[in-house]
Amino acid sequence: MNIYRYEENPLITPEDVKPHHDDFEVIGAFNAGVTIYKDEVIMLLRVAERPITKDTNKVMAPIYNHESDELEIIELDKSNPVFDFSDSRTIREKGKLDSFVYLTSLSYLRIARSKDGHQFTVDPEPFIYPSNKLERFGIEDPRITKIGDTYYIYFSACSEVGVGESLVSTKDWETVTYHGMIFAPENKDVLIFPEQINGKYYALHRPVPKSTGSPEVWIAESDNLLYWGNHKHLIGLRTGMWDDGRIGGGAVPIKTDKGWLELYHGASKDNKYCMGAVLLDLNEPSKVIARSSEPLVKPETDYEINGFFGNVVFSCGAIVEGDIVKMYYGVADTSMACAELSLSEILDSLNYENFFGQ
Amino acid sequence: MNIYRYEENPLITPEDVKPHHDDFEVIGAFNAGVTIYKDEVIMLLRVAERPITKDTNKVMAPIYNHESDELEIIELDKSNPVFDFSDSRTIREKGKLDSFVYLTSLSYLRIARSKDGHQFTVDPEPFIYPSNKLERFGIEDPRITKIGDTYYIYFSACSEVGVGESLVSTKDWETVTYHGMIFAPENKDVLIFPEQINGKYYALHRPVPKSTGSPEVWIAESDNLLYWGNHKHLIGLRTGMWDDGRIGGGAVPIKTDKGWLELYHGASKDNKYCMGAVLLDLNEPSKVIARSSEPLVKPETDYEINGFFGNVVFSCGAIVEGDIVKMYYGVADTSMACAELSLSEILDSLNYENFFGQ
Repeated sequence: MNIYRYEENPLITPEDVKPHHDDFEVIGAFNAGVTIYKDEVIMLLRVAERPITKDTNKVMAPIYNHESDELEIIELDKSNPVFDFSDSRTIREKGKLDSFVYLTSLSYLRIARSKDGHQFTVDPEPFIYPSNKLERFGIEDPRITKIGDTYYIYFSACSEVGVGESLVSTKDWETVTYHGMIFAPENKDVLIFPEQINGKYYALHRPVPKSTGSPEVWIAESDNLLYWGNHKHLIGLRTGMWDDGRIGGGAVPIKTDKGWLELYHGASKDNKYCMGAVLLDLNEPSKVIARSSEPLVKPETDYEINGFFGNVVFSCGAIVEGDIVKMYYGVADTSMACAELSLSEILDSLNYENFFGQ
Repeated sequence: MNIYRYEENPLITPEDVKPHHDDFEVIGAFNAGVTIYKDEVIMLLRVAERPITKDTNKVMAPIYNHESDELEIIELDKSNPVFDFSDSRTIREKGKLDSFVYLTSLSYLRIARSKDGHQFTVDPEPFIYPSNKLERFGIEDPRITKIGDTYYIYFSACSEVGVGESLVSTKDWETVTYHGMIFAPENKDVLIFPEQINGKYYALHRPVPKSTGSPEVWIAESDNLLYWGNHKHLIGLRTGMWDDGRIGGGAVPIKTDKGWLELYHGASKDNKYCMGAVLLDLNEPSKVIARSSEPLVKPETDYEINGFFGNVVFSCGAIVEGDIVKMYYGVADTSMACAELSLSEILDSLNYENFFGQ
């Protein structure tokens, strides 16, 4: 697999983003949804900000108060016997390390624009900012599907009541229409296919069940993009392989002669996030045709290995031009990068026979 | 609150149900959906069966093989160091007691019929039996909403990939149409409102998120009953009260002058399941008007306190005649019972001002 990582990588780093909040620092500008609007590449960045503190004994959690429309900050002492602070991203209760109580940063969505796909300029203000009860902990990891002249933007909405996936739409990247939460908690990594298939819309999604089951990829159908059903389990974790910890859709599915190509992320049990691919039937996308035995892209460069949460490559969007897949991807939960891959090489690399556990 | 428990309680016990499988025993006939068809009360029982074993060192897990359409039995020795057998309902992995690996019984749905609502006769065969990959661990806790001349039956579909909520429909209680999974894992306790409100169908549902959030009641909308969206958090757990462990909808919402009355179950942290009520706005059912401060019905009788999993009253359906609410309910995860309550007394008992945590 030939991978051409851009020389300019990382394309956007936290230093390129002015904090939206006074006395906050930007710690991440990553996991961007990607599309083209007019003659520009748009990266819709997930920007994560946290309160600046000089007291290393304190950990703070910013929370959007939907009633007052203001940010509140919860401050905890690291000596607090109730909580565990070992994961820099979250505050967890001791003895319940599978779940979190607070996030240590607040994420929102901000546009970066580029004429050439290499040099980006970040907008001075947020594009989509938390605005309701389901977004009190922030909004994360957008994807963008263009259907007709409408851009559908969907993202994880995080709050005390769970993490689900909400939908907004825009035609002009100025006015935004809210459509509410389309996948109830716990769900992330939704990808809406860019066209109807046999009269139905389809979406990949990634529930995280608690009582039984794993973070795996499902597929659902809709007739209006707002309401979803006929949920089917699509692909699972594969024991002992690169994607045996958690998986989730990445870029919007790419239509090819051989099927719908989905670039997805898989994490190992020790949280190394790689990108691979799965190929779905063109007419019946709940049918799996092939899957990557090995990752297409894994963390190798310094900016992929080191960061706020290292060893992560995580794509939320790609732009396809002929045989070239320009995969934009978040690195180390910190910055954005881009790599070009060959579509035909990806398709040739897949395992069409024995891809295990679907 | 006056509660008239039927003298015949429990109305159906496991002894009244002939096992569907050779060498199996029925351990539960409970949590029935309830409706009226022609001149009969129908209880659609959840029947739980397990393999008979005389070896007290063994625990068995029956699994429906969707490829061969046959039951398989996994047999584990209680000395197996990987698993925990302390919950009679499930087999769990040691160190992961928040989740399960197998269930110790297989549930399916079976009809019990009655002319008077007191004396029931159980059909000789299952009505709905597991039939696909999402039902390998069984199907549970049905609810029935009649809209027009169609009965919509929905239930928890359990398998290794999670527990979600699937929908079937029937007009004649003989022919069944499958509509797939309508709420993806993890979800249970779905209740579809019996009529459209301002042109939309509504449903209560109960996600169980893993990373953050609790088992609480949400509301969703639909325009065709198959596809659902605009998910909103409706009511939560209440610390220190009878419903501080988990909650979920019970009976199909009852239309009253004051609002939609939902009989819901609440469990305390030590797994005592009671029934209470919440009142929702007639025109905007995502708006909570009032809620029970104390349970309406709590486990008190021998058949409610003792059983396969004791201290449980759990309703999946009620029949309303004037001011009388005939609440059918599962007891102790074992049998079925019925109690009559006064609709106006229930409405009067609710807390309209200070019902906490919504």
